[in-house]
Amino acid sequence: MAKVDWKPGTMIYPLPAVMVTVGASPEEYNIITISWTGTICSDPPMCYISVRPGRHSFNLLMKNKEFVINLTTKELAFATDWCGVRSGKQHKKFESMGLTPAPALMVNAPIIEEAPVNIECRVTEIIPLGTHHMFMAEVLNVKADEQYIDSKTGVFALDKANPICYSHGQYYTLGKRIGKFGFSVEKKKTRRKREARMRNKDE
Amino acid sequence: MAKVDWKPGTMIYPLPAVMVTVGASPEEYNIITISWTGTICSDPPMCYISVRPGRHSFNLLMKNKEFVINLTTKELAFATDWCGVRSGKQHKKFESMGLTPAPALMVNAPIIEEAPVNIECRVTEIIPLGTHHMFMAEVLNVKADEQYIDSKTGVFALDKANPICYSHGQYYTLGKRIGKFGFSVEKKKTRRKREARMRNKDE
Repeated sequence: MAKVDWKPGTMIYPLPAVMVTVGASPEEYNIITISWTGTICSDPPMCYISVRPGRHSFNLLMKNKEFVINLTTKELAFATDWCGVRSGKQHKKFESMGLTPAPALMVNAPIIEEAPVNIECRVTEIIPLGTHHMFMAEVLNVKADEQYIDSKTGVFALDKANPICYSHGQYYTLGKRIGKFGFSVEKKKTRRKREARMRNKDE
Repeated sequence: MAKVDWKPGTMIYPLPAVMVTVGASPEEYNIITISWTGTICSDPPMCYISVRPGRHSFNLLMKNKEFVINLTTKELAFATDWCGVRSGKQHKKFESMGLTPAPALMVNAPIIEEAPVNIECRVTEIIPLGTHHMFMAEVLNVKADEQYIDSKTGVFALDKANPICYSHGQYYTLGKRIGKFGFSVEKKKTRRKREARMRNKDE
């Protein structure tokens, strides 16, 4: 194994590719696709998005201090990419992509009805870093699509929504499930039971 | 499509699952697996990790203000999970997992030789948020495994390393490639050419 040194760069992958919705009224509604996003605290639940000051959504974020993170799927892949390269200065993105804005519970920014999960956020701090400003935010509510919730167990199966991720310039679906958190220390008997259950489920 | 409201939570997925290395000397070397990580600025290249104060690596981060983000693969999945549930207080994680610490170029924290990409970081700010402290950092150097660099084109193919991600409690490999950034606005001719090239490549 030989390693080469690159110049410093942004090489954390795979990342989410989320559609962030902004705007306090239908005239303002816009969608921006973002991979510079993530969770920064479990409790209180907090996250961030980093946005370039040149983007149309930037001013709306500065003004309204609210946004919704909408998770994306294979079915939404085209819209996800398109909303990342086109600007809300020229386009009504909801209409162009045939997406449906719906009311959030806690913020004025709309949710994307077609997304499996909508994360409603209020900005707590804005940190200018260079090319991007980081918007730190608190999660105020999460909406989830009922069709992915098991009616018996109440378990939400995000994988059934076919989520996508972004890795080094490419979008991918998820592949094989390797194991759940903690699988490396699970007792063998428990693991065997789980695997048998999974096999039965897949059949 | 019906939506249910959940309580606020951490639902941004899929996420990376990286092995973060810390410690200024071999006695200190430790590995902690983290999904609360991401890029926060393109230029200067900056990223973050969020860590609970109870973790063994937390004090080493506070003292040394340096770490390395090591990307993970299917081959490293067991070690990735194990280093996330076991503590450096009880375990020498490099030895237990058969991983090789090697010198970084710009920081004293070690790289994991077996990882395809190592991102060397220096902490610029520490922000207490609640359960987690956020460590913002500047990327000082990136090391990449030569075996994933095309000797003719110089292009680094991270997908050849079989990267993994973490989504709602489960680890996954990447699945099908959907398209590259900008595919939704690519001219048809260019896209057809690329697709033909991909087909030839796959054959």
